[in-house]
Amino acid sequence: MKALVIIAHGSRRAESNEEVANLAEQVRQRAEQHYAIVEHAFLELAEPALPDVIESLIEHGSDEIVILPYFLNSGNHVREDIPTLLSNARHDHPACEFKLAQPIGMYAGMPELILAGANQA
Amino acid sequence: MKALVIIAHGSRRAESNEEVANLAEQVRQRAEQHYAIVEHAFLELAEPALPDVIESLIEHGSDEIVILPYFLNSGNHVREDIPTLLSNARHDHPACEFKLAQPIGMYAGMPELILAGANQA
Repeated sequence: MKALVIIAHGSRRAESNEEVANLAEQVRQRAEQHYAIVEHAFLELAEPALPDVIESLIEHGSDEIVILPYFLNSGNHVREDIPTLLSNARHDHPACEFKLAQPIGMYAGMPELILAGANQA
Repeated sequence: MKALVIIAHGSRRAESNEEVANLAEQVRQRAEQHYAIVEHAFLELAEPALPDVIESLIEHGSDEIVILPYFLNSGNHVREDIPTLLSNARHDHPACEFKLAQPIGMYAGMPELILAGANQA
């Protein structure tokens, strides 16, 4: 059973964290054929934390989990913190396959998304 | 003459700022029919600053400038800092039309972009 976890930085501002939860919900509505479960997690400042989400997914039968960094730049959070969490998860759950997606700022579709947004301004 | 300015937070890490410059270049290559000029700017920690970019664009003949926040969440930078800069720019350059786009985290295409990236993991 395949799961997708969108991991965001997390904010002290509740509305920012709710935006991430809402985004995960929108992804969930479009993901039926690809992912049985779509969840969100935060790196810091907010809950749920990534290890807790992974634990829960595996308890519910996930055996393949894609971790997707909702970050624009490939800074230390993307290059060190998230890979460390992933390494720990692989160690703790050897029967589950983990995949790490690129941060969304790297996606080929980003320039088109920007132009679409600019044209609606 | 219509211009687009992608404004990012800015980072102490040079590579992160270069990623923004590269993204602006990719947008520029796709923007020919919509924007005569595409530039990037930073809110803090890096140059060029938004007021300097706006000044330069107007000197070069821009009379319509779209400011696009390259931010995922609608926190204080998006809700207060960028609107304040825009208000100042409108005051300083009344002959230029300024438009403020939504931050990219709000775009309707974001869930599809996330799914596309997840499927390539």
